[in-house]
Amino acid sequence: MAMRFSPAITRLIAELNKLPGIGAKTAQRLAFHILAQDNEQALALADAIRDAKQDVTLCSECCNLTEDDPCDICRSQNRDRSVVCVVENPRDVSVMERVQNFDGLYHVLHGAISPMEDIGPEDIKLRELLQRLQQHQEIEEIILAMNPSIEGEATALYIARLLHKTGIKTTQLSHGIPMGADLEYADAETLSRALKNRQEL
Amino acid sequence: MAMRFSPAITRLIAELNKLPGIGAKTAQRLAFHILAQDNEQALALADAIRDAKQDVTLCSECCNLTEDDPCDICRSQNRDRSVVCVVENPRDVSVMERVQNFDGLYHVLHGAISPMEDIGPEDIKLRELLQRLQQHQEIEEIILAMNPSIEGEATALYIARLLHKTGIKTTQLSHGIPMGADLEYADAETLSRALKNRQEL
Repeated sequence: MAMRFSPAITRLIAELNKLPGIGAKTAQRLAFHILAQDNEQALALADAIRDAKQDVTLCSECCNLTEDDPCDICRSQNRDRSVVCVVENPRDVSVMERVQNFDGLYHVLHGAISPMEDIGPEDIKLRELLQRLQQHQEIEEIILAMNPSIEGEATALYIARLLHKTGIKTTQLSHGIPMGADLEYADAETLSRALKNRQEL
Repeated sequence: MAMRFSPAITRLIAELNKLPGIGAKTAQRLAFHILAQDNEQALALADAIRDAKQDVTLCSECCNLTEDDPCDICRSQNRDRSVVCVVENPRDVSVMERVQNFDGLYHVLHGAISPMEDIGPEDIKLRELLQRLQQHQEIEEIILAMNPSIEGEATALYIARLLHKTGIKTTQLSHGIPMGADLEYADAETLSRALKNRQEL
């Protein structure tokens, strides 16, 4: 027997339940936490959602999430404008930014090609990347930094094939044994990649 | 090095991070999910929070969360008004309601006495319970259904002592081996309780 709650509580639980990784139990727990909070605290969350949706747009250059257009990175004078790192999601930009030795620009695809989920090349920001390459002849290299998943690999291959025609240098982040990890725990696919990409010392 | 996000995104992450059980990583994941949603979906969550905070109040009888005052249960004609089950939280009412053989009323304390967290008897809806007992002489039994925690036990003991003076019958949910659980996995405290509360067959 499902729990009965009043309509407003049921709706709040349902909306929280739609968030990724938030199951029915967690949604209930969060809803009752929000209801137990004082008004100011609870409305701070509602307002943060509203404001973020209102103020955050896509950078017209790199398609990253931003409140100013173009975004900070695209506007920066200290960036190498000849290199563009292509990532799947806005979070990946933040991950890459933690690497101190990359000072190029980014392009955010907002997804990866996935026939299983019916996501094709036209559903990600790929047309925007090609337009950008035409408009910015200073771009000399595209670094593909997709996730090491089937979808990520397929997307990288698709883009590499498209770019091959343009003559722009296209590279990909190397795959291999993670630093600090024990060889014993590396999966076969990773080991196979590491072997294939072995470097001369 | 922490990730840098724009102010509106940072604020959204911070507000999500304040929810119980939502760590920094999860808050980021949720924030980017909300930003990737279409406006209607994202604002449905913001509105659900806002509406729930606006429409949901405490029942003036039992202190449960409700949109109508008194709440459905307190207004119902099919309830045994001589028995009141005292619980810590609104969710506990829903849990108890799944038990088909309880048809009494409830009283929600909204917490438990916890000296460690500086929560005293005046910080929970205990005064409201005592007032209710004075106003409703038809109440004959109080069932204490606190959580089997130190705070829950302390709260139950405190209430039992208070009620002792009033002469109202006070009972507590029994503790013991959970149904379907293997004896081997029961902790010593539960076993000890089960032994003490053993029933004649």
